[in-house]
Amino acid sequence: MVIVMKKNATESQIDHVIKWVESIGYGVHPSYSVERTIIGVVGNDRGKAQLKNAGYLPGVERIMPILKPYKLASREAKEGNTIVRVGDVEIGGSEFIVMAGPCSIESEEQLMESAYIAKKGGAHILRGVAFKPRTSPYCLQGLEEEGLKLLGKGREKTGMPVVTEVMNTTDVDVVEEYADILQIGARNIQNFALLKKVGHARKPVLLKRGMMTTIEELLMSAEYILSCGNNKVILCERGIRTFETAMRNTLDLGAVPVLKELTHLPITVDPSHAAGHWKYVIPLARGAVAVGADGLLIEVHPEPEKALCDGLQSLKPEKFYQLMEEMRAFGTTMRGETGVLQ
Amino acid sequence: MVIVMKKNATESQIDHVIKWVESIGYGVHPSYSVERTIIGVVGNDRGKAQLKNAGYLPGVERIMPILKPYKLASREAKEGNTIVRVGDVEIGGSEFIVMAGPCSIESEEQLMESAYIAKKGGAHILRGVAFKPRTSPYCLQGLEEEGLKLLGKGREKTGMPVVTEVMNTTDVDVVEEYADILQIGARNIQNFALLKKVGHARKPVLLKRGMMTTIEELLMSAEYILSCGNNKVILCERGIRTFETAMRNTLDLGAVPVLKELTHLPITVDPSHAAGHWKYVIPLARGAVAVGADGLLIEVHPEPEKALCDGLQSLKPEKFYQLMEEMRAFGTTMRGETGVLQ
Amino acid sequence: MVIVMKKNATESQIDHVIKWVESIGYGVHPSYSVERTIIGVVGNDRGKAQLKNAGYLPGVERIMPILKPYKLASREAKEGNTIVRVGDVEIGGSEFIVMAGPCSIESEEQLMESAYIAKKGGAHILRGVAFKPRTSPYCLQGLEEEGLKLLGKGREKTGMPVVTEVMNTTDVDVVEEYADILQIGARNIQNFALLKKVGHARKPVLLKRGMMTTIEELLMSAEYILSCGNNKVILCERGIRTFETAMRNTLDLGAVPVLKELTHLPITVDPSHAAGHWKYVIPLARGAVAVGADGLLIEVHPEPEKALCDGLQSLKPEKFYQLMEEMRAFGTTMRGETGVLQ
Amino acid sequence: MVIVMKKNATESQIDHVIKWVESIGYGVHPSYSVERTIIGVVGNDRGKAQLKNAGYLPGVERIMPILKPYKLASREAKEGNTIVRVGDVEIGGSEFIVMAGPCSIESEEQLMESAYIAKKGGAHILRGVAFKPRTSPYCLQGLEEEGLKLLGKGREKTGMPVVTEVMNTTDVDVVEEYADILQIGARNIQNFALLKKVGHARKPVLLKRGMMTTIEELLMSAEYILSCGNNKVILCERGIRTFETAMRNTLDLGAVPVLKELTHLPITVDPSHAAGHWKYVIPLARGAVAVGADGLLIEVHPEPEKALCDGLQSLKPEKFYQLMEEMRAFGTTMRGETGVLQ
Repeated sequence: MVIVMKKNATESQIDHVIKWVESIGYGVHPSYSVERTIIGVVGNDRGKAQLKNAGYLPGVERIMPILKPYKLASREAKEGNTIVRVGDVEIGGSEFIVMAGPCSIESEEQLMESAYIAKKGGAHILRGVAFKPRTSPYCLQGLEEEGLKLLGKGREKTGMPVVTEVMNTTDVDVVEEYADILQIGARNIQNFALLKKVGHARKPVLLKRGMMTTIEELLMSAEYILSCGNNKVILCERGIRTFETAMRNTLDLGAVPVLKELTHLPITVDPSHAAGHWKYVIPLARGAVAVGADGLLIEVHPEPEKALCDGLQSLKPEKFYQLMEEMRAFGTTMRGETGVLQ
Repeated sequence: MVIVMKKNATESQIDHVIKWVESIGYGVHPSYSVERTIIGVVGNDRGKAQLKNAGYLPGVERIMPILKPYKLASREAKEGNTIVRVGDVEIGGSEFIVMAGPCSIESEEQLMESAYIAKKGGAHILRGVAFKPRTSPYCLQGLEEEGLKLLGKGREKTGMPVVTEVMNTTDVDVVEEYADILQIGARNIQNFALLKKVGHARKPVLLKRGMMTTIEELLMSAEYILSCGNNKVILCERGIRTFETAMRNTLDLGAVPVLKELTHLPITVDPSHAAGHWKYVIPLARGAVAVGADGLLIEVHPEPEKALCDGLQSLKPEKFYQLMEEMRAFGTTMRGETGVLQ
Repeated sequence: MVIVMKKNATESQIDHVIKWVESIGYGVHPSYSVERTIIGVVGNDRGKAQLKNAGYLPGVERIMPILKPYKLASREAKEGNTIVRVGDVEIGGSEFIVMAGPCSIESEEQLMESAYIAKKGGAHILRGVAFKPRTSPYCLQGLEEEGLKLLGKGREKTGMPVVTEVMNTTDVDVVEEYADILQIGARNIQNFALLKKVGHARKPVLLKRGMMTTIEELLMSAEYILSCGNNKVILCERGIRTFETAMRNTLDLGAVPVLKELTHLPITVDPSHAAGHWKYVIPLARGAVAVGADGLLIEVHPEPEKALCDGLQSLKPEKFYQLMEEMRAFGTTMRGETGVLQ
Repeated sequence: MVIVMKKNATESQIDHVIKWVESIGYGVHPSYSVERTIIGVVGNDRGKAQLKNAGYLPGVERIMPILKPYKLASREAKEGNTIVRVGDVEIGGSEFIVMAGPCSIESEEQLMESAYIAKKGGAHILRGVAFKPRTSPYCLQGLEEEGLKLLGKGREKTGMPVVTEVMNTTDVDVVEEYADILQIGARNIQNFALLKKVGHARKPVLLKRGMMTTIEELLMSAEYILSCGNNKVILCERGIRTFETAMRNTLDLGAVPVLKELTHLPITVDPSHAAGHWKYVIPLARGAVAVGADGLLIEVHPEPEKALCDGLQSLKPEKFYQLMEEMRAFGTTMRGETGVLQ
């Protein structure tokens, strides 16, 4: 941390700050200059909330942290990339991964049909939500455990691993029984009790960035899970909230290269929720693979116009097959032997 | 809801939309014009996610909801203002209410000293956090039940009711045992499992707006609680996330008159968390009372520079006493017999 | 426009609104329902600021515009795509276009070297700024007309058309003398006097979206230029301002498919300004071509570490050559005979 | 400036950075530590764009500026507050100032009526726009010089000084002929050519913060004007763009105490444009005076429902009189002999 003194800070104020910093166990490295005296704090400033109180001392203009607040999630903590294995599927490896399925699990027929479409298109993982976060208490709330059982059937029949959301600490055990990957939704990105709970689970966690979450906060939420012992964390960019309302959210595709630089964890993109409308899903999916994402979450529904939830953002089967076709072409451009990422 | 057809929508597309709307149980009221045909949907469009699928039909340009998605929280549901009573204190009534105390409960000495300062300054309710949401797993995580006990002691010694945060559904029962008001923090504003749980509690709920929560979403979260039967909800504006970083968040004081228009629920303001620095707390508190808030949440600490958490935003005792003095002067201007709000 | 009445609006209030609307020259189409009466306004509501005053009439809850406020820029105004021709280069046609060069024109040597690098890499258009918008009055302000002359020399020696910024109405004539394309910078996106002036120019206009400009406002600014008679407008997405600060701005790649749907004008992307750092330019450029942009603006500098302005976001020559190589590979995937956009 | 080296930066990289910094004329003050080496740059880092290129050197993680980029606008440049005198009116002095009038000047009758209302209510300055920035080319564009003449007549008849907007460098001379204060609108906050032009004018400048402008950028725009020799700058907060759409913009009342801390320039607030609806103007005006603003801009219109522009946000005369009454009561609470600001 660096403490910047005010221009007119007195010598005794500077001395007081130095003594205060030393008194809580840090070294100091002051640098006197005409414009400003700045005091470098030597020592690990992570997790030391108390150090921020320096801002309270007379003569202090502001304090500037130097270290990133996360450790385990950072590239400094690990060489190479984390590859999360789920059955035969590797997320974060050389293959581009698609997780597809309906938004909500509505019925056995709807889920099984969606599963076969996903499989036929070439998706690697089946997604579907049984515990459904809804902004309105008057909307469908999800089939809960019954939905999990259907998802289990989808896995059994298609051979694809399944991912589903968990919303409450008390549901983690039952979800873990049925699911291969536990999804933490955007609205629970800073539900720290839930993060700790899945941090103690055995299954991988798909962690969706919140609409209001900075990249640093996303990595801090991943850090929660990692610090509890679960190192199988998959990140997911799904759109942030900005002033622009042409799509439901603004997909921050730039977050992908930033995350690739900062962390060893795999990064996926969910264009369906960001767009809020099927017509933008395919171009955004193309963009996601181009900026270097490791995979996609795609909503597909046998009959979107009859969907009980978020039908508008779900692809029809034929559009989904077109998307999967394109992903393979892009895959060659990006990840193939002569791909730009080689 | 209104369905806007594309300029070049064909007659048969329009007919198809009309039949589709009728088939899911709504009446229609089409209006043909040179520029656009628009189709009014007659019936209650709340909670009918399926109606949104109209966006999938050929020839549809977009759909526009007419009704607000909340009911119980709206002024249409109730005449007059909701007054939440906690002991002798009325929140949302004629008196301006201050809830004060430390950010985190650190020790018996610190909590009791803070409680006496709050009492001496004239605060009505004691606040303090035992279950602490921290963005870093490496920071102080709160004293949990031990903290709740200290809070109980603070209440006993000062006679003030107490408010404290609950973060997890599994903690609601124990928090309710000790607290007079259950606080839902900004990061849990869309933790729907938690909202439902406190919706079934007997104690009032202080619901803090999230950093990127719209006013409509805040009211939808209140609606969750109300729809479970708990009608004692107190709203709290605590700053939203914008591009401006001069303060930690941008305090949306305009939300107060907007909420006063839309809902019967009382509205408080937390300038300490919005500002992130004690030096802005007093001017923001003045602004809050001026725009018509019903109360304030203020962080006060006997020795902020030694605080284990958020010391920088806590007022020292003498500043807190000054603030309380001012609040009384403002109270007269605003709510007194000849006040501008009369 | 649709006027939504309050739930408790009286019959006489509804009548009054209807008469008021008719009195200013519009037809009405009321639709009575239990929840709300809504009044459709029949007629062109564009440019009719007065119609918005309906919000002032007793009993009115809110007003909702139906038509987009732009006409000439919309797809309704023109079949097919606008292709802007500059010499042999077609922007918005089948070829993906790259405009490259230094941020500021610093000297003859620097500009000429940059021009040769751009040419060698395969760029189509040379960019360089002579009139430089700087947020600080203490920074380099640009070589002005001398810079324009150097740009002219760059064009002469390389055969590439040139694009440069114009900041002030009084400079439009001199810039038009030297440049093939007039650039309007992000900070002047709502400088309406300047928009009108370039709307009367003969040269094409490259219009950069502002950091907080909605897509609709961008199209309204294009409409200003189009409505003055200049129909050669090229749009440019260059990043918007959000809460995320990992890059300088958040590149809104989703704006590209949205604009492709709404307008016939060509759309380019400037990843250099959005990123603010060269290390993110290449992934963002890949993303831009993937989402369907018609071209790129790229900053390249022979020795970025010596640049007088924005060196950090400029590519070194070898990185630029790599980017151009990739753009050709992507071009095949996207726009080639079997490309995904065919 | 502080240069933070990467954790794994080599000694030779560190040496290289140090030599590079010295080579462009700065001193260095390195601080070696286990976690990171940081290099303090000694010297004035304002306006030295080149120093930022350090980010290009191998081993550099990031660079952190220490000094604010503005000088003349800062409290370091001047003791006490700047008071801008216009006739008998002092802006930034002990009295709270109200500038009132219609949005657009529509006709002699409308302007004169508005002027008398403003005068009767007790406003200090008459406002009205002759050169009108409109987002749509199809809307009223202002009466231009004819409007300025009417404004002159308003001044003559009421004795109030007048403020009006100037949008284009070529109009500054004529506006200065008629107006007592030149207003720079929110959309021109970074129209640097215009800022320089009014920086050379003799009349005071009312500088409105842009919807996308940070407080630091607002002060940089003020710095442009100050650095050209015009030290009579009045700042104005008028709402910023956020995700919240309940009002047209989010009024950043917190900017007032921040600006009071950073600058000696007076600060006013425009609640009419922020709100976009008259019903929120009065509560926001109360808030503005409470947070410490020096004055208000208020739109008032004799018959808002007939206004040609922005009628919805204009107060009717009786509401305006009520507001002015309140402002006097608040003035006593805030600025009177026993006011909270004493």
